[in-house]
Amino acid sequence: MTSVNIPVYQTTAPDFNQQLQTRLAFDDSTDAGIQSAVTDIIAAVRARGDDAVVELTNKFDRIHAQSMAELTLTQADLKTAFDGLSDAQRQALQAAASRVKQYHEAQNAECGKSWQYTEADGTMLGQKVTPLDRVGIYVPGGKAAYPSSVLMNAIPAHVAGVEHIIMVVPTPDGVRNPLVLAAAYIAGVSTVFTIGGAQAVAALAYGTASVPRVDKIVGPGNAFVAEAKRRVFGQVGIDMIAGPSEILIIADGTTDPDWVAMDLFSQAEHDELAQSILLCPDADYVEKVRASINKQIETMPRADVIRASLEGRGALIVTRSMDEACDISNTIAPEHLEISALNPAQWADKIRHAGAIFMGAYTSESLGDYCAGPNHVLPTSGTARFSSPLGVYDFQKRSSLIHVSEQGANTLGKIAATLAHGEGLTAHARSAEMRLK
Amino acid sequence: MTSVNIPVYQTTAPDFNQQLQTRLAFDDSTDAGIQSAVTDIIAAVRARGDDAVVELTNKFDRIHAQSMAELTLTQADLKTAFDGLSDAQRQALQAAASRVKQYHEAQNAECGKSWQYTEADGTMLGQKVTPLDRVGIYVPGGKAAYPSSVLMNAIPAHVAGVEHIIMVVPTPDGVRNPLVLAAAYIAGVSTVFTIGGAQAVAALAYGTASVPRVDKIVGPGNAFVAEAKRRVFGQVGIDMIAGPSEILIIADGTTDPDWVAMDLFSQAEHDELAQSILLCPDADYVEKVRASINKQIETMPRADVIRASLEGRGALIVTRSMDEACDISNTIAPEHLEISALNPAQWADKIRHAGAIFMGAYTSESLGDYCAGPNHVLPTSGTARFSSPLGVYDFQKRSSLIHVSEQGANTLGKIAATLAHGEGLTAHARSAEMRLK
Repeated sequence: MTSVNIPVYQTTAPDFNQQLQTRLAFDDSTDAGIQSAVTDIIAAVRARGDDAVVELTNKFDRIHAQSMAELTLTQADLKTAFDGLSDAQRQALQAAASRVKQYHEAQNAECGKSWQYTEADGTMLGQKVTPLDRVGIYVPGGKAAYPSSVLMNAIPAHVAGVEHIIMVVPTPDGVRNPLVLAAAYIAGVSTVFTIGGAQAVAALAYGTASVPRVDKIVGPGNAFVAEAKRRVFGQVGIDMIAGPSEILIIADGTTDPDWVAMDLFSQAEHDELAQSILLCPDADYVEKVRASINKQIETMPRADVIRASLEGRGALIVTRSMDEACDISNTIAPEHLEISALNPAQWADKIRHAGAIFMGAYTSESLGDYCAGPNHVLPTSGTARFSSPLGVYDFQKRSSLIHVSEQGANTLGKIAATLAHGEGLTAHARSAEMRLK
Repeated sequence: MTSVNIPVYQTTAPDFNQQLQTRLAFDDSTDAGIQSAVTDIIAAVRARGDDAVVELTNKFDRIHAQSMAELTLTQADLKTAFDGLSDAQRQALQAAASRVKQYHEAQNAECGKSWQYTEADGTMLGQKVTPLDRVGIYVPGGKAAYPSSVLMNAIPAHVAGVEHIIMVVPTPDGVRNPLVLAAAYIAGVSTVFTIGGAQAVAALAYGTASVPRVDKIVGPGNAFVAEAKRRVFGQVGIDMIAGPSEILIIADGTTDPDWVAMDLFSQAEHDELAQSILLCPDADYVEKVRASINKQIETMPRADVIRASLEGRGALIVTRSMDEACDISNTIAPEHLEISALNPAQWADKIRHAGAIFMGAYTSESLGDYCAGPNHVLPTSGTARFSSPLGVYDFQKRSSLIHVSEQGANTLGKIAATLAHGEGLTAHARSAEMRLK
């Protein structure tokens, strides 16, 4: 078998920055054909509701449903799927769900609380935190159907207090994924429709006779789903549009090179566009990881995907120091960052932008993907510069609370009136002045 | 003077829901001409940087700058503007800034903290909160230039810990607004460029030789600015695209009707598309507010705008009860909600969706617009169903922290491997299995 042609860069090379930028570049523009198809699908669903959803589902998923009733699953359907799992799978799913729930409950306790304070003159200020009423969760069908994604999207919504969690999952050729339905059963999903694509997004955003209109739509999907989410943004909230998955590993050379190589594989096996990068100041260690890649690739069922990903988008980078590795990581703002090093906290402290930080040799990214507890829905493509992991806060919103006392109105009214007059807004000023003593 | 033709609805009318929906409807679609102009402007700025920004600024703002240096203000320029204000204006601005800062510091203490917990086997989980590196604040020029908006956008970023706050504000015909520059001076803005429109948004999103690339762009603007923000979303974060401003007042009939009428005016005077709605179970009181509107309209400098807004989009609604008023408010999810009633907390408790809740007769919305402390950048057009006031949390993001112990890896690895095999992801499974004892 030929060796994996993953490039090795040196940060000391004069053209290193350009090499890195070329590797990071990713074209996420949407095809005009997809845009126009999505426009038509959204218009059809808005105009003809359930009828359009059934028609489009029959067409794209190659099934023959007569009505939305056939595309609606009951709690009993979900329970049947759950009961049908092997003991090992059922226990693993429940253990993962329980840990994810526990983590998000801790998160909710930290940042999901209403708060207020009262000033000396009796004026009260604060913020009230409330859950969204209804949330839609998109779950891809077919080969990309991941039960772990159901847990990671539904559990934070449930912990946030959302009453109605509506899941949509297409069933191409009528094939249902029992692990996905079992995950919905234990994650607190209210209703499942076996629909997908832009038609499912449109139905959730605008509502039909059968599908309730939701307030926010989350979850990954193909290019049609991503474009549909972009288009309904404003009508409903959406989560980030995810790009290809990425891992960046900062290694000090103390971890078994086989572990690091396999962690790079675990990202690369997702998809040919996935990105796996190693940063390490020890050139000999980098060479050991490269050798391990070539040794272990032969044992991987998804070797073709891994090879394409590592050769097309991966890199092994020899840095001047661990500090420089942290600096480069901050410019990349990776989705997953493994700090595979002794005393990882000293390096984590220097990290400003990353979706999730996996600290120490024992913390493989795959533990976080399934069951460590934190969410696996993370900002991709450098958006960790300005966005966060999916969390309970994505399923809650805040209302400012302002209760000004009579005395407070007298103080604040003078300030407000002065500023309002300065902005030429007389009604604003007068509304404040009327409340002066 | 003719009376203001604001409609009065009764919730008992059979067609009430339709009447209300018609009033709430608002077409926010973007003109194709604007879309194409924005495409060209973004492409020009990406291709030619500062040169394009100077050219476009000269063209749209009718000025004659030779270089970006002429479009860059120093801290000394800002201080000069601040020193030139009247004592009353300077003190009002400082008092407002101080209260806004205090409120957002309280907010930061509530929900801006990193947190973590350690499990029995030594595994540590948590979330690290960090500020964005660089933020861009768009401030409209000309007649819609509001110093209060500078405070409301820049202060939360400053409190959140953002190091570089870059403000852009166009100066049509070269006219600078001293109140706006003075507000930038006290709000912690790092640099001001006197540029605006889609060209300013593009410069902030992609960076030029003079304008630093930012991580997020916030602040209101015209249709070109809104479209440009939509287009650069993903490259940078953006705040919500704001629709017309709205006020909803729930009154129990105990507040002076003149106060309530003026509060309706204070929203209506913003713009002909602004929306002012009153909900009240007391038909006689509604009639008194209507009479007050007709009495007070004659004294308003912006009477034409107020009249157009109230007649085109306003409504006075007689409800069956205060409870029904709260229910209707929840379906509208207003930007500003005044509960002008005795014991307002009993009604505020029933409110699930609102940008800000102004409680009691003394809490006019205008106090919140300027100086009560909470942010005046709020979700419009029903988006309070799923989004929140601008806050420190918009200028921070979170990174998950996961440090699994050797023992933890042994427990979690088995769960992760079972689930990974179920999803057909062998590298994920093996990466976990390698760390088993």
